[in-house]
Amino acid sequence: MMAVPSTRPPGVAPVVAMVGGGQLARMTHQAAIGLGQTLRVLATAADEPAAQVTPDVVIGSHTDLEDLRRVAAGADALTFDHEHVPTELLDKLVAEGINVAPPPHALVHAQDKLVMRRRLTALGAAVPRFVALDSVDDLAEIDAFAQRLAGSKDAPIVVKAVRGGYDGRGVRMARDLADAREIAAGYLADGMPVLVEERVELRRELSALVARSPFGQGAAWPVVETVQRDGICLLVVAPAPALADDLAAAAQQLALRLAAELGVVGVLAVELFETTDGALLVNELAMRPHNSGHWTMDGARTSQFEQHLRAVLDYPLGETDATAPVTVMVNVLGAPQPPAPNAMTMDERLHHLFARMPDARVHLYGKAERPGRKVGHINFLGTDKDLKDPTKLRGRAELAAHWLSHGQWTDGWDPHGWKG
Amino acid sequence: MMAVPSTRPPGVAPVVAMVGGGQLARMTHQAAIGLGQTLRVLATAADEPAAQVTPDVVIGSHTDLEDLRRVAAGADALTFDHEHVPTELLDKLVAEGINVAPPPHALVHAQDKLVMRRRLTALGAAVPRFVALDSVDDLAEIDAFAQRLAGSKDAPIVVKAVRGGYDGRGVRMARDLADAREIAAGYLADGMPVLVEERVELRRELSALVARSPFGQGAAWPVVETVQRDGICLLVVAPAPALADDLAAAAQQLALRLAAELGVVGVLAVELFETTDGALLVNELAMRPHNSGHWTMDGARTSQFEQHLRAVLDYPLGETDATAPVTVMVNVLGAPQPPAPNAMTMDERLHHLFARMPDARVHLYGKAERPGRKVGHINFLGTDKDLKDPTKLRGRAELAAHWLSHGQWTDGWDPHGWKG
Repeated sequence: MMAVPSTRPPGVAPVVAMVGGGQLARMTHQAAIGLGQTLRVLATAADEPAAQVTPDVVIGSHTDLEDLRRVAAGADALTFDHEHVPTELLDKLVAEGINVAPPPHALVHAQDKLVMRRRLTALGAAVPRFVALDSVDDLAEIDAFAQRLAGSKDAPIVVKAVRGGYDGRGVRMARDLADAREIAAGYLADGMPVLVEERVELRRELSALVARSPFGQGAAWPVVETVQRDGICLLVVAPAPALADDLAAAAQQLALRLAAELGVVGVLAVELFETTDGALLVNELAMRPHNSGHWTMDGARTSQFEQHLRAVLDYPLGETDATAPVTVMVNVLGAPQPPAPNAMTMDERLHHLFARMPDARVHLYGKAERPGRKVGHINFLGTDKDLKDPTKLRGRAELAAHWLSHGQWTDGWDPHGWKG
Repeated sequence: MMAVPSTRPPGVAPVVAMVGGGQLARMTHQAAIGLGQTLRVLATAADEPAAQVTPDVVIGSHTDLEDLRRVAAGADALTFDHEHVPTELLDKLVAEGINVAPPPHALVHAQDKLVMRRRLTALGAAVPRFVALDSVDDLAEIDAFAQRLAGSKDAPIVVKAVRGGYDGRGVRMARDLADAREIAAGYLADGMPVLVEERVELRRELSALVARSPFGQGAAWPVVETVQRDGICLLVVAPAPALADDLAAAAQQLALRLAAELGVVGVLAVELFETTDGALLVNELAMRPHNSGHWTMDGARTSQFEQHLRAVLDYPLGETDATAPVTVMVNVLGAPQPPAPNAMTMDERLHHLFARMPDARVHLYGKAERPGRKVGHINFLGTDKDLKDPTKLRGRAELAAHWLSHGQWTDGWDPHGWKG
């Protein structure tokens, strides 16, 4: 079957097809409802987060051309909840007249860390120093690279699979050079090229989130601070506390410039390292709604999900102003240990959370709890006082997330009443 | 088939069944997604606003007991997008163990204007003076009522069908007493009892929106001003401009007290007349998310749709604080004349609206345009300056709504460029 480009009659609302049925598609559906649009998702199973809540679901695989054609048929745009669709397939869809947004020539920079690093270097954007390894014959280059970095073989380095990683997968901190060689050899033996990078001295991680439409309009949200553990985003503070105005503006301009240079359509997240000497290095790119933008659902006039839809359909973009002086977003992760048989359910925990924190803005994904799995997030909106010192707001957010994850308040507060 | 009360296993998220597949159910589904819940709707057709966007749809009639049982089966609560389900049917469902929220003994006050007026009078709440007519033999009472009202037969009066009205239907302003008798005779001939009321000298109309949970928790949003035309809500300003603090507090307290006295579960809208001498009279009650609360989707921490779900499921209620000093909501109505064949589509109009007003928060209902039909609404968030004088913000909102309705900017601005 050939995919059929949209021939939408006048008056009929747009259909956006999204590859992937995860929480990003779920939240995009919420935004599509408000815009009067239809979001059609390609999900691998009917119980995926988005497939639970939208009637327009195609069950299939993101690596199957026929399934991609089925979800794209008649849609105004084909877009993504993840970046794992092979560009060869997307190129075929483009040739068949499908409006793929972002287009594959842009998306590849969110798929292949080496392509991204080389392109960004060519564009003059600062990235961590790196060397690429294509085969086990190149392993000795790790030592030479470390030597160049620091004049010693003890330089801290990171080994990354060039493709397939997200949420920290495919990214390994090497203990030493022997460990680095072993990790790299493992990836290379699986046929996966490797990127070896300097381990940067960080002050913190930032994210510059922007959207770009095919017309070329760009819109930037405030730059945020992200807190990661094992490569998984745990917490976001928007805007990034005490970030100098010029650095914030530089990060936004960099993200807008990369969106334009790479031809991004939709949301682009530029994950940045702020180094201890105040430089900004690009770590990762994502071309879809992104965990670092979940705060926008309550904290910005236009959420990243609505903006992504507006961008891929070439609507003028919405205002990105914040609705509160500061917003803190926390992810709710499945607890490391499965809950005890008599433990409270998520629903019971939610009751207690709402009782204690009526201002918590909860977003759940309809996922079963598994250790470390993202099952939801919570936004807290703060005041001017919280902007100056977000410690208390962060503390409340972390308490809320820990409670929803573990069924325990870390401050010892007992939801059942008097303590024994 | 008997309806089966919920026997939800621990860990499985709640299911809320909503009777009616209109825009209120559509927007409630958006909120249900965030809370990790399932909204199941009873719709009369698959193309109704809510049925378009949720996979859990029962097609049927709200006056068919079997259809009501089907949608309620296994749900944690049965609630409403409109108030037209006969209480006899709801009483049966309650007897079968279904959690009907609001319960029928409360809901009847939103169904029957006479029951409501009498109960409110008994509770000491001020209402317009009224007389009830049960048959054409009572028509002479209209003259006696007018005489009592004003000492003359020229007192302005309103004739209302006791049941079945909404959006101005069933409410008629009588030109004179002969007209009043004729209108009343028409309703009575159809077997519909009639309420004859004084036509109150209005300063404006207000709405006090609250929610109440079965536990008894109440939460009130700021009191708003509503602007109606022919009984249809056109515009809402939240909070009501220049409303004295004591009057605002009195309206909130009245709404919370009525919610408690009537045993409401869910959202209660108390539509009020502010008279020229500064009194508050109750005009109507609605026990569901209400047009006067659409501003909360962007203008309040917790929207009325999320709050309704929290209330009917007996969760603690969310914070009702405003996110901006002032919010203006406008309804988008189908234009009086059908669009010309070469006129812009709604989608094209939306592009132009977004281009001119990037701060417009648009909510569309997926409905075909028909004259006077509510097809969407738009929220605009204002500043402290707009709170002091909302004229400009109201003007922008009205311009936006007129544009989306008519495809014409009333200020003559030409979206296609230079004017001829």
